[in-house]
Amino acid sequence: MLVVMKHSASAQEIRDVVDMIQEMGYEARPIPGRQRTSVGLIGNDGQVEPTLFQSLPGVLEVIPVSHSYKQVSREWKEESTVVTLPNGTNIGGNEVVLMAGPCAVEGEEMILDLAQTLSRMGATILRGGAFKPRTSPYSFQGLGVKGLQYLAKAREETGMAIVTEVLDVETAEAVAEYADILQVGARNMQNYPLLRKVGNIKKPILLKRGLSATIEELLLAAEYVIAEGNPNVILCERGVRSFDTQTRNLLDLTAIPVVKSLSHLPIIADPSHGTGVRAKVTPMARAAVAAGADGLMVEVHADPNHALSDGAQSLYPDQFQELLDQIRVIARAIHRAMTPPLAHQAGFE
Amino acid sequence: MLVVMKHSASAQEIRDVVDMIQEMGYEARPIPGRQRTSVGLIGNDGQVEPTLFQSLPGVLEVIPVSHSYKQVSREWKEESTVVTLPNGTNIGGNEVVLMAGPCAVEGEEMILDLAQTLSRMGATILRGGAFKPRTSPYSFQGLGVKGLQYLAKAREETGMAIVTEVLDVETAEAVAEYADILQVGARNMQNYPLLRKVGNIKKPILLKRGLSATIEELLLAAEYVIAEGNPNVILCERGVRSFDTQTRNLLDLTAIPVVKSLSHLPIIADPSHGTGVRAKVTPMARAAVAAGADGLMVEVHADPNHALSDGAQSLYPDQFQELLDQIRVIARAIHRAMTPPLAHQAGFE
Amino acid sequence: MLVVMKHSASAQEIRDVVDMIQEMGYEARPIPGRQRTSVGLIGNDGQVEPTLFQSLPGVLEVIPVSHSYKQVSREWKEESTVVTLPNGTNIGGNEVVLMAGPCAVEGEEMILDLAQTLSRMGATILRGGAFKPRTSPYSFQGLGVKGLQYLAKAREETGMAIVTEVLDVETAEAVAEYADILQVGARNMQNYPLLRKVGNIKKPILLKRGLSATIEELLLAAEYVIAEGNPNVILCERGVRSFDTQTRNLLDLTAIPVVKSLSHLPIIADPSHGTGVRAKVTPMARAAVAAGADGLMVEVHADPNHALSDGAQSLYPDQFQELLDQIRVIARAIHRAMTPPLAHQAGFE
Amino acid sequence: MLVVMKHSASAQEIRDVVDMIQEMGYEARPIPGRQRTSVGLIGNDGQVEPTLFQSLPGVLEVIPVSHSYKQVSREWKEESTVVTLPNGTNIGGNEVVLMAGPCAVEGEEMILDLAQTLSRMGATILRGGAFKPRTSPYSFQGLGVKGLQYLAKAREETGMAIVTEVLDVETAEAVAEYADILQVGARNMQNYPLLRKVGNIKKPILLKRGLSATIEELLLAAEYVIAEGNPNVILCERGVRSFDTQTRNLLDLTAIPVVKSLSHLPIIADPSHGTGVRAKVTPMARAAVAAGADGLMVEVHADPNHALSDGAQSLYPDQFQELLDQIRVIARAIHRAMTPPLAHQAGFE
Repeated sequence: MLVVMKHSASAQEIRDVVDMIQEMGYEARPIPGRQRTSVGLIGNDGQVEPTLFQSLPGVLEVIPVSHSYKQVSREWKEESTVVTLPNGTNIGGNEVVLMAGPCAVEGEEMILDLAQTLSRMGATILRGGAFKPRTSPYSFQGLGVKGLQYLAKAREETGMAIVTEVLDVETAEAVAEYADILQVGARNMQNYPLLRKVGNIKKPILLKRGLSATIEELLLAAEYVIAEGNPNVILCERGVRSFDTQTRNLLDLTAIPVVKSLSHLPIIADPSHGTGVRAKVTPMARAAVAAGADGLMVEVHADPNHALSDGAQSLYPDQFQELLDQIRVIARAIHRAMTPPLAHQAGFE
Repeated sequence: MLVVMKHSASAQEIRDVVDMIQEMGYEARPIPGRQRTSVGLIGNDGQVEPTLFQSLPGVLEVIPVSHSYKQVSREWKEESTVVTLPNGTNIGGNEVVLMAGPCAVEGEEMILDLAQTLSRMGATILRGGAFKPRTSPYSFQGLGVKGLQYLAKAREETGMAIVTEVLDVETAEAVAEYADILQVGARNMQNYPLLRKVGNIKKPILLKRGLSATIEELLLAAEYVIAEGNPNVILCERGVRSFDTQTRNLLDLTAIPVVKSLSHLPIIADPSHGTGVRAKVTPMARAAVAAGADGLMVEVHADPNHALSDGAQSLYPDQFQELLDQIRVIARAIHRAMTPPLAHQAGFE
Repeated sequence: MLVVMKHSASAQEIRDVVDMIQEMGYEARPIPGRQRTSVGLIGNDGQVEPTLFQSLPGVLEVIPVSHSYKQVSREWKEESTVVTLPNGTNIGGNEVVLMAGPCAVEGEEMILDLAQTLSRMGATILRGGAFKPRTSPYSFQGLGVKGLQYLAKAREETGMAIVTEVLDVETAEAVAEYADILQVGARNMQNYPLLRKVGNIKKPILLKRGLSATIEELLLAAEYVIAEGNPNVILCERGVRSFDTQTRNLLDLTAIPVVKSLSHLPIIADPSHGTGVRAKVTPMARAAVAAGADGLMVEVHADPNHALSDGAQSLYPDQFQELLDQIRVIARAIHRAMTPPLAHQAGFE
Repeated sequence: MLVVMKHSASAQEIRDVVDMIQEMGYEARPIPGRQRTSVGLIGNDGQVEPTLFQSLPGVLEVIPVSHSYKQVSREWKEESTVVTLPNGTNIGGNEVVLMAGPCAVEGEEMILDLAQTLSRMGATILRGGAFKPRTSPYSFQGLGVKGLQYLAKAREETGMAIVTEVLDVETAEAVAEYADILQVGARNMQNYPLLRKVGNIKKPILLKRGLSATIEELLLAAEYVIAEGNPNVILCERGVRSFDTQTRNLLDLTAIPVVKSLSHLPIIADPSHGTGVRAKVTPMARAAVAAGADGLMVEVHADPNHALSDGAQSLYPDQFQELLDQIRVIARAIHRAMTPPLAHQAGFE
């Protein structure tokens, strides 16, 4: 941490900063400059609040130098984390993974049929909401445990792994009974009790970036999960809030190479929520893979116009097939491959 | 809701939109324009997803006309809601209320002393965090129930009402045992299970605006609480995320008159989190009152340089006194008054 | 335009809105709804200020339905605009074009050498700033006309077309004497006298999106140029301002498919300014092509560490070559091709 | 400037950074920390591009410590700048100044009548656009020189000083012939040729903050003017772009105390553009004064519903009177006064 003193700071004011640092048990190192003196705080273990110094007399500004995240960083662990699912799918290695399915599980037949279609096309992970967070209390809130059971049945029939959202600490265990990956949604990215809870459950976590979360905050949220002993965190860029209303969110694809350089964790993109508009999903899904995403989460629905939620951003199955064909070529262009389709699937049909 | 058709939309495409609206059980009203036709959906009860129409052939865009919030709106209830606390303080009426105290309760003596000071100056509500949400898992997380007990003791000694944060569903009842107002923090503004929980507890709720929440989303979050039968919601503007790094957040004071015109709920401002810098707290506190806020929540600490959190944005007690003196005049300028000091307080000393 | 009345609006207030619309020479159409009445304004020619109605008694809000841009829209002109340069390069057709070069022209030899390298690799358009807009008045401001002459010499030697920035009306003609494409920078996107000036010059214009410009504002800026009789406008996404400081700007690649659907104009991406960090340029360049960009503008410098400006975001020539190889495959994946290298170039060497 | 090295940086990589700094003529000072080494660059004169170091091997990040603005800073000049107008009005001292008038000058009688009303109420500066920047090329663009002449006539009749916008270098001299203060609009905040031009004209400049300009960028824009020898710059906060659509812009009132601490220049607020909605102008005008603004710029129109532009955000004259009465009390609460009405005005009537 660097405490930058004002040009006009007195020798006493500088000494006071030095004293305060030493009193806290750290080393202080004054760095005289041509315009002003700075004081470096050495040995910061992430416990020092930079704001503490900000209002001291003679202080111009305080600049944090070390980051407060640790175990998520590439400095901590050089090699990339690869999360392996029970059905053999790897996330974070050389393969690009596909998670696909409806926004919400709407019924048994609906999800079974769609899972068959998607796994046949090559997706190995089935998404589908059973507990839905909705902006309005009057919107459809999901089928709950019933929805989880339909998802489990779809897994049984197709071999796909299941990713579904966990909304709160109460229902976390119940969701974990059925799901292969627990999704923590954007609105819950800084719900710390929930992060701790899923950190203890020890199933892979899909952690979505909050609507206006910085990348550092996203990494710190992941740190909460890892600090509980669960290293299997997959990050997800799903669009941030912006001033333009043409799309639902602004998909920040640069977050992908940025995360890749700061952290060893896998990162995927969700172009469905990231754009909110069906016609933009395919180009942005391609772009995400080209930017280096380890996978995609895409909403697909057999009949989007009658979907109970997010219909307008769901692809038709044949659009998803076309997307897959394009992505396969793009992955190759950057020396990656798509996750192979579920080998044992033939046996299920 | 208005479905705007493209200039080039065919008669059949327009008919399809009309049919779909009628199939959903609403009335459709085509509105021919010079450039293009629009189709109005009449009778929207907040259940219609505008996105459903967005991807239909021939549709240019879909414009929501009615808002999805209901009971929070001034259209639903004309007169302003006034929340009355056990110690007689009114929030939302003509008086401007002061909530003050440390970011976190750090110990018994500390909070008792500060409460004495603050109530003597005229604050009638004591703030102080017992359960703290922290961006980093390695930061101080609060004293928990012990902190709540110290707050209760401070109430006993001074007569001040207590506002403190509730972090999750699990601890909500415990917090409610001690607190007069349950604070739902910015990071939890869209934590729907928590909103439902506090909606059932029936104590006044202080709902802080999320870091990038629109005012409509803030009102919808309040709607969650009210929909559970708890009408005593106090909104709080505490700064939104911005591109400038000079201050911690961008305090959006215009939200105050905007909320006042859309909703009957009280709204206060938190200039401490809204700026994050001690020297900016006083001018922005004054500005909030001038903009029409029903109250202020201000962090005050006897020794900010040694505070366990948010020290840099905490006022010294004598700065708080000066702030109070200025605000009193400003309140008068707009025909309001400050909440009178606790009448019975003398008896406590 | 739709004037939405309050639930509580009186019949007289509705009549007043109708009268005001008719007085302005338009048709008014009241649309009764279940919750409230709206009044449609029919025949809006883009001259009506929506704000005019906003403060009338009984009005809840005003919703603009028709857009204020005309000639840039796909509704006005269905087929995509293709801009053809003197050296045969087409922008906006099936081919993906490459503009490459240094941030600033720093000297004659420097630009001639780099142009040789880049054209040999396959770029057909040379970028390079002669007049530089700098945030600080104390930074290097460009070589001026001398820089333009060096660019012209590079064109002579390689056959590449030249794109360079025009900073103001005064120097616009001078720049136009040398350049094949006049670039209007992000900071000047709403410099209307400049837009009118380049609209009159009738050379192709590269119009960069402003730092916080909505897509609609970008299209309106293009409309200024076209309204003067110059239809050859190329749009450029170069990143918008965001709350995250990891990258210089937030490259909004979704703007590409959005512009493609709203407008017939070509759109390219500038991943150099869009990220500001060399290591992020290549992934985001690939992503831009995958998202459907008609071309790229990339900063390349033979010795970025000694560049006079923007060194940190400039690629080394061999990184540019690698980028090209990857992009060629991605373009094919979406049935496009790269602009062929300058056929006659051999003759120049 | 501080170059922070990676944890894994080699001794050679650190030496390379040191060498590069010394090669550039500055002093390098390595600062070993517990987690990583940083290298300080001492003697930075604002000419060093921090980005230069960002892509060197072993570098984690580069942190600018000194700001690139100089003459605008309070470190450069401790005492506040006071701009004095020919009619005696002071801006930046203890008095709060009022600039009022229509968005655009629409005709002679209109502006003369309004000036009489406003000066009688106590405003000493008349605002009014003659050259108007408009987002759409099809909107009303102002009366031009004719508008300037009407403004001059209003000055003659009332004694008010005139502030009006200068749109480009071409017309700057013409505008300066008539105006007492040259306004540089938000869209032109980084129009450097224009900033240089008005820097040479030597009349007071009102510089509006750009739509997404950081406060540092605003100060750097002012530095352009001052660097040309014109010290009379008045800054103006007029709202920044935000994600919420309830108001036209987000008025960032915290910018006022922030600018006050960083710079010696006066700063006023424009709540009319800052909100865009008449009913929000008065509360935000009050808030701006409470936050410490040196003045206000407010749009007033005798008949806002028929204004040629910005009608919806213009106050009626009697609303302006009410605003004045409230502001007077607020100014007193913070030990300031309103600029006294023009003493000699009686003589003009």
